[in-house]
Amino acid sequence: MNHRYSERICSTQKSFIREILKVTANPEIISFAGGLPNPNLIDDEGIQKAAAAVLKEDGKTALQYSTTEGHPPLREWIAERYRIRYGLTVDADNILITNGSQQCLDLVGKVYLDKGDAVIVEDPGYLGAIQSFSMFQATYLPVPLDEEGPDLDCLTGVLETSSAKFMYGIPNSQNPSGITYSENRRRDLASELCEHEIPFLEDDAYGELQFDGVARKPVSAYMDGEGILTGSFSKIFSPGMRMGWVCAPDAVMEKILIAKQASDLHSNYLSQRILAKYLEENDIDAHIAGINKEYRKRAEWMVSKMDKCFPDDVHYTRPTGGMFVWLTLPEGVSSGELFEAALKRNVAILPGTPFYADGGGNSTVRVNFSNSDKEEIEAGIEIVADVLDEIRNSPQ
Amino acid sequence: MNHRYSERICSTQKSFIREILKVTANPEIISFAGGLPNPNLIDDEGIQKAAAAVLKEDGKTALQYSTTEGHPPLREWIAERYRIRYGLTVDADNILITNGSQQCLDLVGKVYLDKGDAVIVEDPGYLGAIQSFSMFQATYLPVPLDEEGPDLDCLTGVLETSSAKFMYGIPNSQNPSGITYSENRRRDLASELCEHEIPFLEDDAYGELQFDGVARKPVSAYMDGEGILTGSFSKIFSPGMRMGWVCAPDAVMEKILIAKQASDLHSNYLSQRILAKYLEENDIDAHIAGINKEYRKRAEWMVSKMDKCFPDDVHYTRPTGGMFVWLTLPEGVSSGELFEAALKRNVAILPGTPFYADGGGNSTVRVNFSNSDKEEIEAGIEIVADVLDEIRNSPQ
Repeated sequence: MNHRYSERICSTQKSFIREILKVTANPEIISFAGGLPNPNLIDDEGIQKAAAAVLKEDGKTALQYSTTEGHPPLREWIAERYRIRYGLTVDADNILITNGSQQCLDLVGKVYLDKGDAVIVEDPGYLGAIQSFSMFQATYLPVPLDEEGPDLDCLTGVLETSSAKFMYGIPNSQNPSGITYSENRRRDLASELCEHEIPFLEDDAYGELQFDGVARKPVSAYMDGEGILTGSFSKIFSPGMRMGWVCAPDAVMEKILIAKQASDLHSNYLSQRILAKYLEENDIDAHIAGINKEYRKRAEWMVSKMDKCFPDDVHYTRPTGGMFVWLTLPEGVSSGELFEAALKRNVAILPGTPFYADGGGNSTVRVNFSNSDKEEIEAGIEIVADVLDEIRNSPQ
Repeated sequence: MNHRYSERICSTQKSFIREILKVTANPEIISFAGGLPNPNLIDDEGIQKAAAAVLKEDGKTALQYSTTEGHPPLREWIAERYRIRYGLTVDADNILITNGSQQCLDLVGKVYLDKGDAVIVEDPGYLGAIQSFSMFQATYLPVPLDEEGPDLDCLTGVLETSSAKFMYGIPNSQNPSGITYSENRRRDLASELCEHEIPFLEDDAYGELQFDGVARKPVSAYMDGEGILTGSFSKIFSPGMRMGWVCAPDAVMEKILIAKQASDLHSNYLSQRILAKYLEENDIDAHIAGINKEYRKRAEWMVSKMDKCFPDDVHYTRPTGGMFVWLTLPEGVSSGELFEAALKRNVAILPGTPFYADGGGNSTVRVNFSNSDKEEIEAGIEIVADVLDEIRNSPQ
């Protein structure tokens, strides 16, 4: 049969990272490629207790169809955390529970994007977002990042010459670059976007994973209630349960609700109930502090090893949160080549190229530290250094 | 802020049925409006055991990120059931686990539909599908149903004058009409679609809910491996866990996989593991037989009561499966009016109009029997009959 597929699907690539994850499932491989939380920091025992309690106390209801918006106490918990942690004026009605925060990108894409519409993205930007918006045939307006966040001169130029539907960004420990926007930049960015009436889709996957434990006000906090925030329990609870949320002003939420109904009716209700029960019965702040302590250690192990093994012309970030170190390789070494050679020695890294919506980034590499122990980190980085050396010294 | 929403979202309505479900959550209301499985037939104890076993034996893995395709043993279970029950030649690679079968519609929409593309639908057709395809700005080519299935003369006319991307249908206990396609019609429909190279998206939500227990070969079985099937555990296991799947030929599956990655990375992995464990530890066929026995009883209670209370010029189906009776009201009585009046007396029914992609259906009503007990069914139908009588006898 001659299937006549849509333009949208024919112009969207498979996710390189999802394909790599299949290779790295092999336990012999040291994988720095993914973004997996450390399994030792997933509280399976606490979740087991919460699951047992929910199914015992109210199983018939927890297993039945539920509302599109999500479980009210869970939505209220999220809203309250925004109020307390960030001073946002939101309530449960502004929260909708999604199937992981990746689904927020799909829903917001549905709500704003028609074929050819432009989205302002960070350069480099999160590849999962680029893939998601591509389903709606978006075009991209990349804005480079400096150490404090998006380059505002460049953004102003883009805003004055183009018509974007929204800007997408990750202000805390940006994926992949690791950059955290400064407070001034957040304020200035918000003011610039508001002036041009461009909504900011603020992906806060790593807001809780800041090693210093400081809560940084989101860009949305400076936008007079007009920001759209996405969040995730994947990094602080369980990624396999796919619990995320979107927070949006009432008028936008009305549209998101339609998109959610059409997409899958509602998110997994049993998992929402287990999560709500877990949050009730456990000290999530202590749990998060424990994760940050562990990830900080792992980041330090990785960076120390890089300090020892890497030549001076390899540049890399010193993470203050999140899960990744971002490398810039010396001229003449391509990340694709390094990836292939390291994989032959059973170490997986992630070339940075898929993070660049308009191509480029050939000298960049993302390296994950959250999902490896000290021995793996040290052995893996040593191999990457070896391989890099071999590539540079091999006859061209 | 002046949000510039997409054309797609502005032209899609909220789901009438999802909105009604909020009203009918009030326990004082007898609701025939939804499509909820009977809670007494959800095996919460069995699911509790399966959840405890998974979390105890392999919690860290079950709570971690997983593959986009889904849990291999669950996909193999589904493929094997297709092979044994329907004689299809499919394997686990043809199965992808979705967030309920509603998500299959979203994924297939992404794979096939660009703005303005046509989809052949049954008339009346499932409103959730109409809403889902509207996200991709589809147009609809409705084909009326007779007692054996889609009207083939009409379909031939449509195929010869229009260019559709695919046809969508529910051959077993169609929602909302209750019609089950005859074997001949399945074969002839398949041959007609194959001749015009039009894929059939076959929604089999009710294939296991056939009161006679007979497995009817899907239309896909006559399409030489080219059919796309969707299935759901909502009706036989738990709707709240949102476990559905899509079964597609290799080439189509490659595209669906991209759409799934972009939509939400993967379905809830913990729930997939609980479901797989449940299927391993329990006799699902006995469970399904029990559900069919109960639903047959409820359908009979409802139809008997209608036989007693309804005037001769109200027509209604005698269900052989599924969850619904489909009413056709006498001329001059609108289903909207009946809905409003019955709701005032605390009985909720579902007007048939949203099931007609091109409008119409003003005299039709869908009535659910699975989620009410004998007393509720008898009291509720009596009230509907009363209200109908009042409407007919009120001065116009």
